[in-house]
Amino acid sequence: MTDPFIQSLNYLQSRSELNLTDLIDWCSIPSISSIATHQPDIQKAAEWAAQRLSQAGMQNVEILPTQGHPCVYGDWLKADRDFPTILFYGHYDVQPALDLDAWVSPPFEPQLRDGRLYARGASDMKGQALAEIVAIEAVLKITGKLPLNVKFLLEGEEEIGSRHLRGFIKENQYKLTCDYAIIIDAGMLNPDLPAITYGLRGGMRIFLEVYGPCTDLHSGVFGGTIHNPAQALIELIAGMHDEDGRVTLPGFYDGVRPITESERLDSARLPIDETYLLEMAGVAELWGDPDYSPYERTTSRPTLEVLAIQAGLPGEGVLNIIPAKASAALSMRLVPDQDPKAAYQSLIDYLQENAPPTIRWETRFTGGGRGVLVDRNTPYVKAMHRALQETWGTAPVYLRMGGGIPVVGMFQQELGIESVMTGFGLMDDNVHGPNEHLHLQTWQRGMQALVRFLFEAAM
Amino acid sequence: MTDPFIQSLNYLQSRSELNLTDLIDWCSIPSISSIATHQPDIQKAAEWAAQRLSQAGMQNVEILPTQGHPCVYGDWLKADRDFPTILFYGHYDVQPALDLDAWVSPPFEPQLRDGRLYARGASDMKGQALAEIVAIEAVLKITGKLPLNVKFLLEGEEEIGSRHLRGFIKENQYKLTCDYAIIIDAGMLNPDLPAITYGLRGGMRIFLEVYGPCTDLHSGVFGGTIHNPAQALIELIAGMHDEDGRVTLPGFYDGVRPITESERLDSARLPIDETYLLEMAGVAELWGDPDYSPYERTTSRPTLEVLAIQAGLPGEGVLNIIPAKASAALSMRLVPDQDPKAAYQSLIDYLQENAPPTIRWETRFTGGGRGVLVDRNTPYVKAMHRALQETWGTAPVYLRMGGGIPVVGMFQQELGIESVMTGFGLMDDNVHGPNEHLHLQTWQRGMQALVRFLFEAAM
Repeated sequence: MTDPFIQSLNYLQSRSELNLTDLIDWCSIPSISSIATHQPDIQKAAEWAAQRLSQAGMQNVEILPTQGHPCVYGDWLKADRDFPTILFYGHYDVQPALDLDAWVSPPFEPQLRDGRLYARGASDMKGQALAEIVAIEAVLKITGKLPLNVKFLLEGEEEIGSRHLRGFIKENQYKLTCDYAIIIDAGMLNPDLPAITYGLRGGMRIFLEVYGPCTDLHSGVFGGTIHNPAQALIELIAGMHDEDGRVTLPGFYDGVRPITESERLDSARLPIDETYLLEMAGVAELWGDPDYSPYERTTSRPTLEVLAIQAGLPGEGVLNIIPAKASAALSMRLVPDQDPKAAYQSLIDYLQENAPPTIRWETRFTGGGRGVLVDRNTPYVKAMHRALQETWGTAPVYLRMGGGIPVVGMFQQELGIESVMTGFGLMDDNVHGPNEHLHLQTWQRGMQALVRFLFEAAM
Repeated sequence: MTDPFIQSLNYLQSRSELNLTDLIDWCSIPSISSIATHQPDIQKAAEWAAQRLSQAGMQNVEILPTQGHPCVYGDWLKADRDFPTILFYGHYDVQPALDLDAWVSPPFEPQLRDGRLYARGASDMKGQALAEIVAIEAVLKITGKLPLNVKFLLEGEEEIGSRHLRGFIKENQYKLTCDYAIIIDAGMLNPDLPAITYGLRGGMRIFLEVYGPCTDLHSGVFGGTIHNPAQALIELIAGMHDEDGRVTLPGFYDGVRPITESERLDSARLPIDETYLLEMAGVAELWGDPDYSPYERTTSRPTLEVLAIQAGLPGEGVLNIIPAKASAALSMRLVPDQDPKAAYQSLIDYLQENAPPTIRWETRFTGGGRGVLVDRNTPYVKAMHRALQETWGTAPVYLRMGGGIPVVGMFQQELGIESVMTGFGLMDDNVHGPNEHLHLQTWQRGMQALVRFLFEAAM
C-alpha cells in the first residue's frame, strides 16, 4: 500500500482544476469588509467557506456572529488525545478595489493569465485559505482521518483591522482552545524560496482633520489672510519626518527593540537588496533612514505613512476656494516593544506643539496592535520548517514582515498560544493594489507543503 | 410730466416681485460651466437670458457660438451718435455646488430666507446680470428709448477662467466696439457702502502631480523604503511658503508694483479690518505676510493657494497603501505688473531645485491672466460714482479686489477700452461656497443705481 502522504498529494493533484474553479468561484464574491453596501457579499463569502469546509470533511461547521462581520468555524477533533490541536486561521474578507481603470480585468471577475489568477483576494487571502481547506480535505479523503486535531477559523474583518476579533476570541475561548495556530497570511520573497515569518509590525490608523474657516471661502477674496487648512495640514505632515526620513514625533522611537547581531547576519543573507526593492516598487531610488538597511526599515523599524489626504475638489472641476477643512489618514507601523498608546500620544504631543493657532485640529485612531516577535524554536515552527524544506528542496528563510496580522497578538494574549506564520503569496502579488494575483504554481506547492505539515506536525 | 428717471424707478418698483420670480427661475437652471454633463443647462440658461433681453426691449439678440460655451449678445443702438456706447458685461454660468450637505436648501432650488435669496449663482452673478437687464428695461419701457447706446454681452465660461472669451472678442471686435464697459461682477463690503473696484488680481491654476511607485503598494510591506508620493507632494508644497506666509518660489515677487502712499491712505479708511475679516471667515486668527495689512494681502499682493489635494482614498474606506500618485491643484493670484509666465516659471524652478530624485513630477496650468489696475479718473467712473452716491446717499469707496475678472484685461487688450467695475454682491454672500445668497434690498438698490447711471452716463 502506498504511503498515505503520497496518496494525499496525488489526490490534490487530481483535484487541481476543481480547486482552481472553487477559488474562482469564491473570488467572484466581492466580500469587501470596509464598505457597508457589501454586507450581503460578506455573508455570501462566509457561507461559501462554511459549505466548502463541510465538503472537505470538517465537522461542527458553523457561522458565528461577532459584533461585526461573522466568523466561520469548523473542526475535526477525533485524533488521539496525545496529538496536538492546531488552529488554522484565515480571513474571507478582501480590500476594496476602487481604481478600476488600473485593473486589466475586473477585480471580481477572476481571470487566468500567465499562470496567475488575477482577482481581488486571490492572494490575500482566499487562495491561501482555500489551500488550507484542500490540504485538510486531501488527507481526510485519503486516510479517513487527520493525524492530529484541527480547528479552523476564518474571520471577516482582517482588512479592517480585525476590529471585533478580540471580543470574539474572548467569548469563544473554549471553542478555540488549541496548542498553536497556523497562519498563512504571511508571504514569500520569490517562488523558489519558502519562508517562515517570525516578526510582524503592529500599528494603527490615525485620522487627522484640520479645520479653518467656517465655510469654503473664495480663494481670491480671502487668499493671503486665511491660513488654508489644506496648507496647514500639509505643513504639519511635512514636519513629521526629517530630511532623512526619520519620524520626528517626540518619543516616537521609545521602546523600539534594537535589531540583534544575529538578526542582522540572518537578514544580510536574504535576497532583499536594493535592486530587488527598486524593481518590486518600480521606483528610481529608495528612501528612508540611512542608518538601517531597506529590509530593516520595512520590517524592524516603525514608520509613519500618509495613506490618504484630501482637501478641496481635485481634478478639472476644482473650485476657486480655500477649503473649510482638510483631512488625512496616517498609518503608524509599530515594532516590539513600542506601546501603541504612547506612539499615538507622540503624535498628539507633536500637534499640540506645532499646530498653529490659525486652525483647529482633531484626531482619532483605529486599530492599535503591538508589533510581534514569535519564538523560532518551537516544535511547531520546526515542523513547518521541515514541510517547507521537503517541498521546495531548500530550507526556508526566516523573515520579519512589514505588515501586521492582528490575530497573532490576540492569540498570544487571549489564548496564550504562539503562531507559526508562513504563506504562499509573493511580494509582487500586488495585494491591496490593482491587479492583485496569485501565482498558481506556488499556490499548489503551498498545498503540498500543508499536507506534509499535517503529517510532520503529528510526529 | 414726471421726471423719466423717477418714472423708471417707479416702474422698477412695480416690477419687483416679477423680477424676483425671474431670478428664481434663472437660478433654478444649474448652468455649471465646469461639469460637462451640465452642457444642456448651459444652453438653457443662455436661452433664458436671450429671451429675457428681448423681453426687456433689447435688439439683435442672439446666442453666439464660441470654442466653448456660447455667449449671449443684444444691443440697443438708436441713441444719437454723439452719445457714447457702453457695453454691459455679465456671465450666466455658475460654480458647482458639491458639498450638498452644507447647503440649507438645495443650491438649484432658490429659497427666500431673511430677505435673501439662497441659490448657487444668485449673487455670482445671475442676480447682478438681471439687475442690468431690468434697469435697461425700466428706462426703455418708460421713455421708449435709452439715453445712450448699449451693448450687452453675457458669457458662459467665467467660472472656468473665461477660456474662450479672448478668441470670441477678437472674432467679434466690430460687434463689440464701444467706448467703455460696465462690469458688475465686483462687490461691496457691506450693504451701506457702495464701492467701485479699480484693481483686480489675475492668476492661474496649476495642477501638480507627483508619481512614485508604479502601482499602489502595501504600506506595511514597503513602508520605510519608498518615498510616499503623497508625502513628497506635501513636502514640496510645505516648502512653498516661509513661516510668515511669504511665497518662497524664486523670483515669485518680481514685478510686483509697490502699493502707493495714496492707496495706503485710501485703504486705511476702508471698513476692512482684522475684526471684519475674522468674522467673515469664521477663524480665530488671520494669517499671512506681516509686512502688509490684511486688505493689502488679499488685493495688492500675490498669493499661492492650495485649492485641492488628493492622494489615496480618504475616509473610513482608506486603503493600507502607499499611493502610486498624489495630485494638487494650486492657484496663483497675481498683481500688476507680474508676468504670469514668469510666475509659473518660478514654480518650475522651485520644483527643479527641490523635488527629490525619489519621485517624478508633472505640472500644467490653465488661465494665466495678468493683474489689472484701471484709471479712476475717467468720465465713466465719475458717472458711476455719482449714480452710487445719489442712490446710497454716501460716496462710494474705491477698492482693489482679490479675485479676478478675466474679461477686464481682455477688453483692455483686444478692444482698447477701460471698464467701470462695481457690483451689488456682499462679502458674505458666500459666492463659490455653500449657501450662496443675494441680499435683496442691496440688489434692488443696485438696480436703482444702474437706472441712474444710464441717465448720468449720457450727460
